[in-house]
Amino acid sequence: MKLYDCAPAPSPRRVRMFLAEKGLTIPIVQVDLRGGEHLRPEFLKLNPWGTVPVIELDDGTTISEASACCRYIEEIHPQPPLLGRDPKEKALIAMWDHHCEIDGFLAGAEALRNEAKGMAGRALPGPVGYEQIPGLAERGRARIQHFIAGLNERLGESPFVAGQAFSVADITAFISVEFASWIKINPPEDAAALRRWLEGMRARPSSKA
Amino acid sequence: MKLYDCAPAPSPRRVRMFLAEKGLTIPIVQVDLRGGEHLRPEFLKLNPWGTVPVIELDDGTTISEASACCRYIEEIHPQPPLLGRDPKEKALIAMWDHHCEIDGFLAGAEALRNEAKGMAGRALPGPVGYEQIPGLAERGRARIQHFIAGLNERLGESPFVAGQAFSVADITAFISVEFASWIKINPPEDAAALRRWLEGMRARPSSKA
Repeated sequence: MKLYDCAPAPSPRRVRMFLAEKGLTIPIVQVDLRGGEHLRPEFLKLNPWGTVPVIELDDGTTISEASACCRYIEEIHPQPPLLGRDPKEKALIAMWDHHCEIDGFLAGAEALRNEAKGMAGRALPGPVGYEQIPGLAERGRARIQHFIAGLNERLGESPFVAGQAFSVADITAFISVEFASWIKINPPEDAAALRRWLEGMRARPSSKA
Repeated sequence: MKLYDCAPAPSPRRVRMFLAEKGLTIPIVQVDLRGGEHLRPEFLKLNPWGTVPVIELDDGTTISEASACCRYIEEIHPQPPLLGRDPKEKALIAMWDHHCEIDGFLAGAEALRNEAKGMAGRALPGPVGYEQIPGLAERGRARIQHFIAGLNERLGESPFVAGQAFSVADITAFISVEFASWIKINPPEDAAALRRWLEGMRARPSSKA
């Protein structure tokens, strides 16, 4: 099994951090997103949607989409459980992870991709070149700020995003918050619960993965 | 366990269809989205993100987000498996389901919500009132057409979306394609594989759920 990665990109970082929490090290192939390597025929054969991360299994099967990569890793290396231990916990983690991805991660991507000069004509990942929509950059900024406020509220009542235990939802939330800092949106000074949790997240060795 | 639903809405339909494929019937509570019931304090207590579907367990726990509701149902009623039987199949189903949700379902919602008159000020679900962005309606239309073309290609090489077996990815894809017809985007006449699969999907009793 190997991971197609791009070190600076936030999406494959979700899988690197997940692997690190499992104590796993697997071969990594860097894909040069800036150079457009992900849109070349050789890479599109691995993932027609032209995104990283991709996990390639020894039989040649390729799995894209960060959440699906994490699912595979969880199934073959259940310990420590990061997707939950019983039906209720699994569902609550899936719920929070989905919320963090859609309202946090994708909101940040919406803002960045629709305003960064280098992203002109690439407002969505993948092989279709979508033009930037300025109003969407603005909306993305509003959304990520709502997300951060909600996350602070949640972490005021729960030690981790999905409940009492660390889970994949913390990884997705953490990377979403750090990703937002790329566009200079940071947790407000008074977001005490979120800042305490962020400190804990940054102290985990997996945050360096 | 009961389901908070809104019969005409495509998102809770994913869970109804999933339940029907499992042969399960559970109490259903209709939420009047048109009347704004999902944004009233009583409903926001169940789901602060103001969306359906929501599953409420007997202990009062509430699970929102369609994919998380399906995860719960799969865990308590594993047969027939709709999220996969082994690690590889589970990951491939997660990958396809995620693709169908993001590039199909959400693309359709992007188009509809940004162009329908009745959706003014509600371009995203939930309690924050986002204004419509006309360019985003256009982009959503382009995206759903790309999705439909890709789905036809996929179904030319595989009997079901995620492989040899029917799975949740077929449910998400099917509801996304039917949802697109709300804005008059339908599979082209020559999309033979997709049309064959659609016929099979419409013949399943769960499609009426």
